[in-house]
Amino acid sequence: MGMKERPNAITLAKGFKSQAIAAGIKKSGGLDLALIYSEVPASARGMFTKNKFAAAPVELCREYLKSKKAQAIVVNSGNANCYTGKPGMETAQNTARLSAELLRIDKKMVLVASTGIIGRPLDFSKINKALPSLVSSLDRNSGNKTAQAIMTTDTKPKALALELEISGKKVIIGAIAKGAGMIAPDMAYTEHSRSATMLCFITTDISIEYPALKEALKQAVENSFNMITIDGCMSTNDSVIILANGLAQNKKVCLGTNDFSKFKTALSEICLGLAKMIIRDAEGATKFITIQVSGAKNNTQAKKAALAVANSNLFKTAVYGGGSNWGRIVAAVGASGVEVREKIKIEGDSFKKKDIIVKIDLRVGRGKAVVYTSDLTPEYIRINAGYC
Amino acid sequence: MGMKERPNAITLAKGFKSQAIAAGIKKSGGLDLALIYSEVPASARGMFTKNKFAAAPVELCREYLKSKKAQAIVVNSGNANCYTGKPGMETAQNTARLSAELLRIDKKMVLVASTGIIGRPLDFSKINKALPSLVSSLDRNSGNKTAQAIMTTDTKPKALALELEISGKKVIIGAIAKGAGMIAPDMAYTEHSRSATMLCFITTDISIEYPALKEALKQAVENSFNMITIDGCMSTNDSVIILANGLAQNKKVCLGTNDFSKFKTALSEICLGLAKMIIRDAEGATKFITIQVSGAKNNTQAKKAALAVANSNLFKTAVYGGGSNWGRIVAAVGASGVEVREKIKIEGDSFKKKDIIVKIDLRVGRGKAVVYTSDLTPEYIRINAGYC
Repeated sequence: MGMKERPNAITLAKGFKSQAIAAGIKKSGGLDLALIYSEVPASARGMFTKNKFAAAPVELCREYLKSKKAQAIVVNSGNANCYTGKPGMETAQNTARLSAELLRIDKKMVLVASTGIIGRPLDFSKINKALPSLVSSLDRNSGNKTAQAIMTTDTKPKALALELEISGKKVIIGAIAKGAGMIAPDMAYTEHSRSATMLCFITTDISIEYPALKEALKQAVENSFNMITIDGCMSTNDSVIILANGLAQNKKVCLGTNDFSKFKTALSEICLGLAKMIIRDAEGATKFITIQVSGAKNNTQAKKAALAVANSNLFKTAVYGGGSNWGRIVAAVGASGVEVREKIKIEGDSFKKKDIIVKIDLRVGRGKAVVYTSDLTPEYIRINAGYC
Repeated sequence: MGMKERPNAITLAKGFKSQAIAAGIKKSGGLDLALIYSEVPASARGMFTKNKFAAAPVELCREYLKSKKAQAIVVNSGNANCYTGKPGMETAQNTARLSAELLRIDKKMVLVASTGIIGRPLDFSKINKALPSLVSSLDRNSGNKTAQAIMTTDTKPKALALELEISGKKVIIGAIAKGAGMIAPDMAYTEHSRSATMLCFITTDISIEYPALKEALKQAVENSFNMITIDGCMSTNDSVIILANGLAQNKKVCLGTNDFSKFKTALSEICLGLAKMIIRDAEGATKFITIQVSGAKNNTQAKKAALAVANSNLFKTAVYGGGSNWGRIVAAVGASGVEVREKIKIEGDSFKKKDIIVKIDLRVGRGKAVVYTSDLTPEYIRINAGYC
């Protein structure tokens, strides 16, 4: 199959199960605790926010992922478990420890992720109470509930899957994501950190060497999640985690091979697909905007210019209004500080359209970048003035 | 007198006259062309946007101010004369030339400033037609009209004056400013440039040496206009210009003297006063927010952290909503990349108040900064979705 929206995406690859439950963390009483599990230990890699106040679960994942292996991910929504000090870290650790006990695996094989309000204690007792039934009811048919349980202000679950053939074997990549607000990810695998909550979990049964997994994820994230912005606000919790359990039994994929290219392309497609779904479901958004910058001194400057336009409140409100105010693009590019010629070239759709492409040629060099964003609307303000 | 709102501020100092007219540049038919004039040549200094697409009048001022002298300023609202290429520069030059002819002074003694839409041709014929009556009707009673003529989305004119005594002589500083949107000034006296239109014109009859005038203006702007942000969008047209004509006949003020300190303090007070008036009249604003950062590694990092919070849409919408969402301050500081301790200290007023002070101690060093901003509201979006 080509890439498809599959509600059950996260459990389509061999050996993966999941479950979700309402643990009472969200005020609404909705699904708020999810578990993703691989029957066998998987190669694991993560990329996380660069926010200096990274949430406790992010710090814990950085620690546990040093082993390059994982077998489960516990995710809660409704509370970011960020800026919660030592008790927050203990809650994250206890969540991993108890899940591991119940799953009868090593505690460092369980990763943790959170999204929601920053700076409020996350009550472990609620997780403690919910985990046993979560573990005992793991199955292959609850992917949709799992995708729903990681949502905050998202209006719909985001799940994509794709099948490819590697050395004659069918390989599946499935992934779920959430976004909505505080979305300006810039993720890396680094000791220090940033924040806006964008979460993405990817499960695949491919057999792949760790360096190849790492490189494929890096490229996929750089060209997808790191290229979207909703409000320019980087979260403390942004996380992308991939588990590759090898159960497809393909010839192990190594860096530099055709199989690696094939996998990398597929993974990039999945990540870009989910990144675009996040923008389409951005808080209050009425438009989908693609900003293509070319002619920059280099790709870094191209990205900088594109993000400057994408994060300009004046540009975003102009698009919302549907008038034509190209001058705001000029001002944003000029304010970004990147190298430009006296006259740049701006082409694009009418702001009246729903899907808008803006092309900006800085006329200096060969650097280019594509960034995706949404408009800024009264509804965004209504949502965020009330969310606390 | 202490600092006061004086509608006529710009013509209170000896030897200054002004006038304003509706030249048909604004669609509304309102006042849109103003002239400020000193009867004798004045010491002159300006600070301008760092936007790379600085408007034609900004480029012209940079050129003309090399002489360190000026005698008049022509300001139009309704059109920024930015990104208008050679014709735009010709309009700016012709405006200066014709004004100088009518005033019978050297053309390089006339400075030009513009504010309004970016990227639309500014029709010189309108200015050409209006200038003769503008010049012939210059007087000392039209300061209020002058302050009105430089407005765009401002809801009220902004004019402050202050009197001080220097070597037994009465010295007056008067100033007018406009702001409202595209406000995140970072001005310098530099060959390259930025943009959000904040304009300020200062007239004083003090007798002062040029290096002292330059230094006093630099410090005043750094601690006032460069410390405010409404929407994080730097304009192409930000300009602050001061004319000091010496008619107070005080003993000439030099750097390093008590008189210099006295003048510098007074000028800083005027600039800060106007900067705060700009924030209070920000597009759609319902709140006035002061962000005090201390404990930073240095003052630059303190300013960076304070601006990161002030420009966070999520912080600004939280303040608008009046709930308490301190986590968004944490996320914004963490995303700014400045050095912080694991726990910082945040204190402040309830977001329910109209005037809110937020104090953030980064607990690293002794750097500090104070930034002023407004909330982000549906009205801001309404104004900017329609403005074109």
